[in-house]
Amino acid sequence: MIVASINAHYIVKPVSGKHFELFDRNFSTLFASDWQIMTMEKITEFLDKNADLFEEELFEFLRIPSVSTDSGFDSQTSEAGAWIAEKLSSTGLDTEIIQTNRHPIVYSQSKPVPGKPIVLVYGHYDVQPPDPLDEWETPPFEPTRRNGNVYARGATDDKGQLYTHIKSVESWMKTVGELPVQVKFLIEGEEECGSGSVYEFLDGQYDASIDKHSVSVSELLRSDIAVISDNSQFGPGRPAITYGLRGIAYFELRLTGPKQDLHSGAFGGAVTNPCNVLSSMLAALKDLNGKIQVPGFFDDVVPLSNREREQLANLPFDENGFRKQISVDGLTGEDGYSTLERRWARPTCDVNGIWGGYQGEGAKTVMPAKAGAKFSFRLVPNQDAEAISKSVEAMFRKMCPPGIKMELVNIHAGNGVVVPLESPFIEAAENAIDKGFGIKPVFIREGGSIPIVSTLKEKLGVDTLLLGWGLGDDNTHSPNEKFHLADFHRGTRSSAFLLDEIGKMKTN
Amino acid sequence: MIVASINAHYIVKPVSGKHFELFDRNFSTLFASDWQIMTMEKITEFLDKNADLFEEELFEFLRIPSVSTDSGFDSQTSEAGAWIAEKLSSTGLDTEIIQTNRHPIVYSQSKPVPGKPIVLVYGHYDVQPPDPLDEWETPPFEPTRRNGNVYARGATDDKGQLYTHIKSVESWMKTVGELPVQVKFLIEGEEECGSGSVYEFLDGQYDASIDKHSVSVSELLRSDIAVISDNSQFGPGRPAITYGLRGIAYFELRLTGPKQDLHSGAFGGAVTNPCNVLSSMLAALKDLNGKIQVPGFFDDVVPLSNREREQLANLPFDENGFRKQISVDGLTGEDGYSTLERRWARPTCDVNGIWGGYQGEGAKTVMPAKAGAKFSFRLVPNQDAEAISKSVEAMFRKMCPPGIKMELVNIHAGNGVVVPLESPFIEAAENAIDKGFGIKPVFIREGGSIPIVSTLKEKLGVDTLLLGWGLGDDNTHSPNEKFHLADFHRGTRSSAFLLDEIGKMKTN
Repeated sequence: MIVASINAHYIVKPVSGKHFELFDRNFSTLFASDWQIMTMEKITEFLDKNADLFEEELFEFLRIPSVSTDSGFDSQTSEAGAWIAEKLSSTGLDTEIIQTNRHPIVYSQSKPVPGKPIVLVYGHYDVQPPDPLDEWETPPFEPTRRNGNVYARGATDDKGQLYTHIKSVESWMKTVGELPVQVKFLIEGEEECGSGSVYEFLDGQYDASIDKHSVSVSELLRSDIAVISDNSQFGPGRPAITYGLRGIAYFELRLTGPKQDLHSGAFGGAVTNPCNVLSSMLAALKDLNGKIQVPGFFDDVVPLSNREREQLANLPFDENGFRKQISVDGLTGEDGYSTLERRWARPTCDVNGIWGGYQGEGAKTVMPAKAGAKFSFRLVPNQDAEAISKSVEAMFRKMCPPGIKMELVNIHAGNGVVVPLESPFIEAAENAIDKGFGIKPVFIREGGSIPIVSTLKEKLGVDTLLLGWGLGDDNTHSPNEKFHLADFHRGTRSSAFLLDEIGKMKTN
Repeated sequence: MIVASINAHYIVKPVSGKHFELFDRNFSTLFASDWQIMTMEKITEFLDKNADLFEEELFEFLRIPSVSTDSGFDSQTSEAGAWIAEKLSSTGLDTEIIQTNRHPIVYSQSKPVPGKPIVLVYGHYDVQPPDPLDEWETPPFEPTRRNGNVYARGATDDKGQLYTHIKSVESWMKTVGELPVQVKFLIEGEEECGSGSVYEFLDGQYDASIDKHSVSVSELLRSDIAVISDNSQFGPGRPAITYGLRGIAYFELRLTGPKQDLHSGAFGGAVTNPCNVLSSMLAALKDLNGKIQVPGFFDDVVPLSNREREQLANLPFDENGFRKQISVDGLTGEDGYSTLERRWARPTCDVNGIWGGYQGEGAKTVMPAKAGAKFSFRLVPNQDAEAISKSVEAMFRKMCPPGIKMELVNIHAGNGVVVPLESPFIEAAENAIDKGFGIKPVFIREGGSIPIVSTLKEKLGVDTLLLGWGLGDDNTHSPNEKFHLADFHRGTRSSAFLLDEIGKMKTN
C-alpha cells in the first residue's frame, strides 16, 4: 500500500534518477525499479500510440534524395540535414547545423545529467546512389509499404535506423520530460562518400563554428559510450550486438593510353591497351584461391582464435538459404575459411566498378584510350589502411607498362575495430534489446565498415555499441532497399530502454 | 599525217575498246594508246572541272548518320543506301536495292564488255558509332572542311573512299559514254557490325530478290578482280597497294553473379565477384610478354619469311613519329617483332570495351551483379577464326568459378588474306596509281580486317585489289575522323585510270 501510494506520488511529477540517492539502498532500489517500470510502461505506451505517426515522419525523411557522393544532389543532401536538425530541436534538444566544406554536420545535445554516463549517438542522413534505377520495383525516393517493410533508398542505411534513436529520445521527453542520461547526437551527411567533413570536424577544423559552447570538439563530444545503428541483426527476430567490424581502403584506378580511341586493326598489337593492362592489374590483386597478393597485406592480420571460430561455427547460419537469397549456384572465397569468417573476420578485395572503351550495342573495333576501375579492400582489426594503400600503389607502378599513364586515387579508408565484450555498456545493451525485442541478442561481427567507429575510439577514446536493427536481405546499397517496420519500432523501444539501462549506471 | 587524221576521226565519235580488234595488231595498238591518252586527258579534265561539285556530293553523303550497329539509326542507315543507289542509277548503271534481314544491299552494274575483264567494286555506306561525342571538334555528321581535309564520321571509312569509284565511273560515262570494262558494284550497310546480310546474300539467300537477272548471286557477281578502297596509304604522298590483311574474331563476354548488386562489406569475400572474374579471364588471354595464351592459337600461323621481314624493315617507317601521333611515351607488343610486324603481320588480342558495377562519381561499396567486355583477336592469314572461337570458349569455361553464369557471344569473324603480288591486276593498279597520284605505290600489309576479302575469294574465287586512299592518322573509328580531299580526287583519278588499264587486258 505504502509502496503503491509512494509510487503514485512519483508518477504524478517527473523524477530524475538522482533523487533516489536519498533513500536507503534497498528501499530506493525498490522504488527506483518500480518507478522505472512505470516509466517504461508509459514510454512503451507512448511509442505504440505514435507508431503510425513515426512511420509517416520516416517516409518524409526518405523522400529526400540525399545522395551525398553525387554533387548533382548537393541541395537535397543539405535539405535532409536540415530536416533531421529540425526534428531534434523540436524534441527539445539544443541543436545546430555546422557548415562544412561539403555537406553539413548536425550536432544536438540534451541537458547534462551529473553522475550519469554521456551517450553519443552517431548516424548519417546521406544515402547511396540509387542506380541501377530500372531494377527498383517502386521508385527509390517514393517510400512504399509492402509486406511489413518500407522500400526506399536509405530505409535501413541509415535514415530508418538513425531515426529510432530520435524517436526514443522524444518518447522520454514527451512522457518523463527529461532524459535519464545526457544524449549527444553527431549526424553527418558524407558517410556514403568517405565522411571527409566529419573527420575534419573531429580534427577541430570547425571548432570556430561551435564556439557558442566555448569548448573544443573533443570536449563537445565527450562521452562514455557511442551508439550506432547502421547495420543488421543476425536474422529475422534474432537481434545482435556487433562487436567487430571490418575496415576499408577504397581506390579508383585510372589508366590512360593513346590520346584518343584508335582502330584496333591498324594499331592493335603495337600500342599498349589500357583495358588489357587494367585487367592484368586487377587480376593480380588475388591468386586463383582468392588469396590477396598485395605485398605485406597479411602482415598485421591477427589470426582468428579457435574460441571465436567455434563461436561463429555455432551460429545458426543457413548457407543454402544465403545462396538462395542472392541466387547463385555456388560460393567462393579465401581457401580454408567458412562463409561467415569470409564475410566478417577475413580481409577481402572486390572490384566495385570497371569501365573503358566501347560499352554500346554490337561491335566497335576500337583500341580504347582510357580505362578505369573502382576497387576496395575490407580490412580486419589491426591492419593499417594507409600502409596497404602504399603497397598497392607500389605494386601497380611496377606493373604499369610503357605507353600507359597511371593514376591511383585513394578515395577513402578506415581501420577495422573490435569492441571489448566485457564492457558494462554491452550488458546494458543486452538488457535493452531483450526488453525491446523480447529476446536476448547474439554477439556477431560484421563485414561492413563503419570507419567512424575506429575514429571515435582514436579521437575521443570512446567505444561504440553497434546495435543493428536491419536485416541481411535489406538490399543495402542495392535496388529495392527496405527496412522492416516492426524492427523500426522494436529498435526505437530498445533505444528507449537503453537510455533507461544506462541511466542506472553511475560514473565516477 | 594519216595517224593524226585517223586520230581526229576517232576523237569526234566515242569509241569503245573492242573496235581496235579490227585493225592489225601493231596498228591497232598504236591507235589504242593514242586514243587512250586523249580519252584520259578528257576524263582528267572532266574530273578537275567537277572537283568542287563532287566534294559537295560527298558532304551530302556524310551528313547521313548511318550507324549500322545501333538499331536507333536504322532508318538513317537505309537512307544512306538509297542515296548511293540513286547516284549509281543516275550515272546510267542498272541499279537495285536488295532488302535484307537488316540493312539493304545496293547492287549496280554497267553493261557487259565482251572479251574484257569484269571489275567488282565493293564498299560500305554504313559508319562506326561516333562516340565519345564530346571529343569531336566539329559534330560527326556535319562535315567540315579544315586544312585540306573533310572531318566527319565515315569520311574515310568508307563513304569517301567508296565514292571515288562512283565518280570515276561517272567520268567515263559523261565523256566517253561507256566504260572500257564491265563494272559491278556491291555496296553493303553492315560492314561495321559484321556484314551479316552480305554473307547471307553471297550464300544465295536473297537470290529470289535478284531473279530479274534470272541468275544466281555467284553468276550475278561473276568477276575477274575485286577492288576495295577502305584502308590507307603508307603515308602522306606515299600511296600503297595492300596485299595482306589480318582477319578478326570479335567477342562479347557476359558474366552474371548474384541476382543484384550487393553490399561489398556484408557480402564481399564470400560471394564470387563478376568484375574480379572478368579481369582474371581477360588477363589470362596474354602473358606478360604480350604473347597470346589461348590454346592452339598459333598452330596455323605461318611464320614471316626473312624476305618479307627485310621488306617491312626497309619501309621508311618513323617509330617516333608514330608514337607522337598517338602521344604515348612508349610502345609494347609481342616480344621479338617490330612495330610494323606487330601491326600488320602478327595476330593480336585487344579488349575493345569493358564494363560492370558502379561507374559514377565517388565511391560506391557495391559487389556488382554483372560484368562484361568486348574483345577481339586480329588473325593472320591461315588462322581459323572458328577454331579460335571454340578454344577461347573452352578456356573461359574452365576458368569460370562457382557463382558465375558465363555467356560468350561470337559477334563476328573473318579470316586474314594475302593477295599474290604476281597478278596482272596488281600491275594495272600500280600503273593507275602512278598516273593518278604521280608516284608509284609501295606494297604493304595492313592490321585491319576486311572479312569480305576472304569471303569474295572463297565464294567467287576472285582476288581483291586493296587500294587505300586514306591516311594512317585519319582517326578511323575515333573522334574527328577525316579524309584528305586531295586524296579523294587523286583516288578518283586513279580509279578512272585503273578502268583504262584493265581495259587494255584481254580475257580468254
